[in-house]
Amino acid sequence: MPNISLKGLSMPQSPIRKLVPYAEAALKKGKSVYHLNIGQPDIKTPQIALDAVKIHSLDILAYTRSEGSEEYRIKIAGYYAKQHIQVTHEDIIVTTGGSEALLFAFGSVMDSDDEIIIPEPFYANYNGFSTASNVKVVPVISKIEDNFALPPISEFEKLITPKTKAILICNPGNPTGYLYSEDEIKQLTALVKKHDLFLIADEVYREFAYDGRSHYSILQEEGLKEHAIMIDSVSKRYSMCGARIGCLVSKNKQVIQTALKFAQARLSPPTFAQIASEAALETPQSYFDEVIEEYVERRNILIAELQKIDGVKVAKPNGAFYCIVELPIKSADHFAQWLLEHFDVNGETVMVAPAAGFYSSSGVGKNQIRIAYVLNKESLIKAVNIIKQALKVYKD
Amino acid sequence: MPNISLKGLSMPQSPIRKLVPYAEAALKKGKSVYHLNIGQPDIKTPQIALDAVKIHSLDILAYTRSEGSEEYRIKIAGYYAKQHIQVTHEDIIVTTGGSEALLFAFGSVMDSDDEIIIPEPFYANYNGFSTASNVKVVPVISKIEDNFALPPISEFEKLITPKTKAILICNPGNPTGYLYSEDEIKQLTALVKKHDLFLIADEVYREFAYDGRSHYSILQEEGLKEHAIMIDSVSKRYSMCGARIGCLVSKNKQVIQTALKFAQARLSPPTFAQIASEAALETPQSYFDEVIEEYVERRNILIAELQKIDGVKVAKPNGAFYCIVELPIKSADHFAQWLLEHFDVNGETVMVAPAAGFYSSSGVGKNQIRIAYVLNKESLIKAVNIIKQALKVYKD
Repeated sequence: MPNISLKGLSMPQSPIRKLVPYAEAALKKGKSVYHLNIGQPDIKTPQIALDAVKIHSLDILAYTRSEGSEEYRIKIAGYYAKQHIQVTHEDIIVTTGGSEALLFAFGSVMDSDDEIIIPEPFYANYNGFSTASNVKVVPVISKIEDNFALPPISEFEKLITPKTKAILICNPGNPTGYLYSEDEIKQLTALVKKHDLFLIADEVYREFAYDGRSHYSILQEEGLKEHAIMIDSVSKRYSMCGARIGCLVSKNKQVIQTALKFAQARLSPPTFAQIASEAALETPQSYFDEVIEEYVERRNILIAELQKIDGVKVAKPNGAFYCIVELPIKSADHFAQWLLEHFDVNGETVMVAPAAGFYSSSGVGKNQIRIAYVLNKESLIKAVNIIKQALKVYKD
Repeated sequence: MPNISLKGLSMPQSPIRKLVPYAEAALKKGKSVYHLNIGQPDIKTPQIALDAVKIHSLDILAYTRSEGSEEYRIKIAGYYAKQHIQVTHEDIIVTTGGSEALLFAFGSVMDSDDEIIIPEPFYANYNGFSTASNVKVVPVISKIEDNFALPPISEFEKLITPKTKAILICNPGNPTGYLYSEDEIKQLTALVKKHDLFLIADEVYREFAYDGRSHYSILQEEGLKEHAIMIDSVSKRYSMCGARIGCLVSKNKQVIQTALKFAQARLSPPTFAQIASEAALETPQSYFDEVIEEYVERRNILIAELQKIDGVKVAKPNGAFYCIVELPIKSADHFAQWLLEHFDVNGETVMVAPAAGFYSSSGVGKNQIRIAYVLNKESLIKAVNIIKQALKVYKD
């Protein structure tokens, strides 16, 4: 039998994948499960986007341009202008989700064994894209005590080698919910210019900035034109995770020309989803206002309830819809499985994501979980109560 | 300014990309252009697939399972059963086009600098996927004189090294239109079993088999369970190129488990397109009968007209909707550009794909073009006449 590749063997599994059979078994036993483990919002997709696909008049579902239609990209540039980001459609390549934009960015700026520095904990799939691209992730640890703020620049500098090609941030952060300040972005700007690195920013949660704070994009930094590559997606913004439409944005012409070659190889992004995504740009501000209000309420309730539990430490998120929670236990992996297998309150239990999968340093974050507050408030209260009751009886 | 990766620099451009500005300039001058250069069929998508998306009842456009919904995969397995291919839904991973299935296959079975043997000329984007995957393409030349039949197995064996991990075929072939016989598949089966290699077959043109011949899949070879990886797509079958839905099929559990990890990293294939693709499986046989009849007529006319031109050599295709044509010129690149810039018949000209981009051996195929017969018969006759008139006056 021929062998699988070493790359294939080292591709990471989804951090929650191994828990899925336990969740399914819990359901079969008649338990209901609150899913705090996934980033699939329960928020409705804007009707205008859903309707655009219903009234399509295509009779041939044809390829689009590899970089996305010019019309759609011009409208995306218009959306960015409203976010104080000055780009043209020529700086934009439409991709199949933010995932593909990351793959194109990695492929365009890094070769085998090159290094990318990422503050951890980070979005687990950055590990997968790095492995797929033969790139080495070099983590720089951010701390729950600091709400996962940017680590000191000196910590980054300690890690820079001749192999370092890029720094990657997620802003606001999944799984941390941390929103980088303008000052932090300026610190990173100075760093990448000093060492001539690319700065890749995953800004797919841009709209989800709370408490009166506003999001500051790396593309707002004038001096960063040649260094900045921004990753975006419609998935969270419009609750359109299933569209699989994102984009890569850069004012560096070489980056765009190179990413375009990757885009041409896979022909085009999905046509129906581009129709929906183009229509979604007409979503009224009231939609976002309501969604943000809902998330802020959820976050406030979640944090307040979690803080009532003895021994629990939680970083207060200012953005996105995740938070990292440190529990008074040894192994969140074991705890998460035990919740599904052996615990319930009136037939209800909870599925959480062990946070170790969001770190690449081994042994870090073992007593942490990530909670996605994508459930309604009542469910969140019940779910946190289940964790509270569970911690009273759980033994490591 | 930070540097682009060597990988990014070596990503190939689309073989027709450099001609696009000349085509646009011809249009601006008021010429009309027959596009023989692209594989976007003019055939209508089955109405049942287009309608399925129009009547969707989603209010949240959510992720699907990374491997595609179980329901859809069960139906795909049912489709294969009708093609004499016995697989279950567990052998199938739904992908974002055949392109992504190829990337998952390459990543799952090959590491950096591993080698894959491909009969050339081959689908140009195999070069792109190989570069993106750090894999080395080793071409084995098939010849226009043999209609691009399978090269002798001894030619493959000369090229096998310890780095060789897989053989890739496209059946029926883009750009050759060659349909491999059962005997040729059996020869390849013996070869990959002898040397313990994977056999990857891109079978996206399965339905397009002409002259009473039937397609023989690598998955019909009983002894090939552990070695066979089949790539498929809805793009050509249902004229749904813009859906971006394909799949990877293998009975090798390790391959499926590994490809699933790549699939999880990118979350899910596009939801709307899966809805359309699932519905497309209900397309009646009459649709295919009509489409095949149309392509056979087109092919017959195209070949007959081409054979009337002095000095032109053409391989008669038994499948897909491409053929390779050898012209009495030195540089098809130059000829293709000249057609757009300097030639027309009554204001009409032709865009063709120079075939050199379908070879990885440098210098081969320079006097060949690929013609996609995706235009109606009248247009094909006019287009070939333009080539005929052009060859009378063209000078290398």
